[in-house]
Amino acid sequence: MTWRAEHDRVAILAGSGALPIQLATQLTTVGLQPYILRLPGVTEKPFENLDGQDLRWEQVGQIFPLCKEHSIGHIVLAGGVDGRPDLKFSQMDWPTLRTLPTILGQLLKGDDAVLGSVITVIEKRGLKVLGAADIAPSLVVDEGRFSGAPGTKDRNRIDLGFQLLDAMSPFDMGQACVVIGGRPVAVEGAEGTDAMLRRIMDLRDNGRLPLQRGGVMVKAPKAGQDHRVDMPTIGPETVSRAVAAGLDGIAVRAGATLILERETCIDIAQRGDLFLTGIAA
Amino acid sequence: MTWRAEHDRVAILAGSGALPIQLATQLTTVGLQPYILRLPGVTEKPFENLDGQDLRWEQVGQIFPLCKEHSIGHIVLAGGVDGRPDLKFSQMDWPTLRTLPTILGQLLKGDDAVLGSVITVIEKRGLKVLGAADIAPSLVVDEGRFSGAPGTKDRNRIDLGFQLLDAMSPFDMGQACVVIGGRPVAVEGAEGTDAMLRRIMDLRDNGRLPLQRGGVMVKAPKAGQDHRVDMPTIGPETVSRAVAAGLDGIAVRAGATLILERETCIDIAQRGDLFLTGIAA
Repeated sequence: MTWRAEHDRVAILAGSGALPIQLATQLTTVGLQPYILRLPGVTEKPFENLDGQDLRWEQVGQIFPLCKEHSIGHIVLAGGVDGRPDLKFSQMDWPTLRTLPTILGQLLKGDDAVLGSVITVIEKRGLKVLGAADIAPSLVVDEGRFSGAPGTKDRNRIDLGFQLLDAMSPFDMGQACVVIGGRPVAVEGAEGTDAMLRRIMDLRDNGRLPLQRGGVMVKAPKAGQDHRVDMPTIGPETVSRAVAAGLDGIAVRAGATLILERETCIDIAQRGDLFLTGIAA
Repeated sequence: MTWRAEHDRVAILAGSGALPIQLATQLTTVGLQPYILRLPGVTEKPFENLDGQDLRWEQVGQIFPLCKEHSIGHIVLAGGVDGRPDLKFSQMDWPTLRTLPTILGQLLKGDDAVLGSVITVIEKRGLKVLGAADIAPSLVVDEGRFSGAPGTKDRNRIDLGFQLLDAMSPFDMGQACVVIGGRPVAVEGAEGTDAMLRRIMDLRDNGRLPLQRGGVMVKAPKAGQDHRVDMPTIGPETVSRAVAAGLDGIAVRAGATLILERETCIDIAQRGDLFLTGIAA
């Protein structure tokens, strides 16, 4: 975290979810006016009182002249993009066409490759890419317990979950799994964490899991993953769904996972009798 | 495959699905009358013209006196059991109580452990356990192509799928995964192969996968898996769902996977423009 807030203006390329909003709030709190690059159909919040610009995918190359025009030296890519963009070449402007071939060429290689190439392309054009954790370090999960405490069996399940995620790490799959009764029963794929937790509910409803309660969700970054573009994230929705799925707890990798709306997450976990813990590597 | 059909009478402990039916047919075809042990709520077919007995889970220990009474020396455990049995101790008879502690003690350790202990317990009581492949070797997938042919990109995806299943093998997860665009997007968990394929349909419907067509499903046994209790199996339902999920093909481990209703599977694959291939280890 070498970036200092006072250095210059920051643009937020805003995906979906609460993260871009929390980063904008953090920046305005320290007296900086972020420049919001909204992706219509992706970005949820209007960010009405903040300076910024709407960009279709086909105009993404406009990022560079826009940032130059507004004296922006740093950019953060925050929030999710569900599915890969359906790019319309016919609508693509010249700066985008010139910028995006590297990204497009790698689009089918896997998320890590794509995101890595996005950073490379952006930094070659003179903008520094920041991670959410650089701007708002308070969002990073620390080691320790936020709610409840895992028992010995829970600890074994958590260890097994981290081991499974490690084993799958080279394959660029999801970043989460669920261990119930000493055995992994779900691994996150392209559907995402929330849909995986929904699956646990369904497995319980239709009797394919033996117990109506118990088990842990484990979430961790892939080995070598660049924290600037895809740090594993949990938020109130994740915690609520884990409660609904009858889990005993959530364990995430400390120092390498973001938690959105921490107080709300802790409140939901406590009311749902769910432990929530950050575990060091 | 040291077992010879002429040796003695075979009991089929019949789970769900078509496999118990196909084995019963195979045995009657060679002039042997199988003895069908039905699990009410699990076994689908009535098997009305065949000798046999209904057994609740709480009566499973009755297998041994029943087999002795009917001069049965071999048993095959065939078909699926969805979810783990909800055992009622109060309804358990004495032979079951005496037999099942080992199994119950391992119930939460994972499918392989459970199934391994089932075999151990049964064979200690003097019954030999057979695999479906011992009785009907024609059900085992051979190396080679049944429908279509994978291209170079498909072959890379198949290799990646087998590598992922190998990496996950120690964790006793599912036996299948789907690779699309060079990246695994789904791993089978407790929900089973069919539900995993359903997920691919959903991911396409809601735009979380970039293409409406393409990708492969790969299925293989776990390392060290006992073929007598849990050989990976595909059938018409699997092939139909793979077609519906827009996949280009299915690759399974030759010599270690069962195919039910082979001709129907091939017909569905060909009409759905899906390759279907057995690949040697």
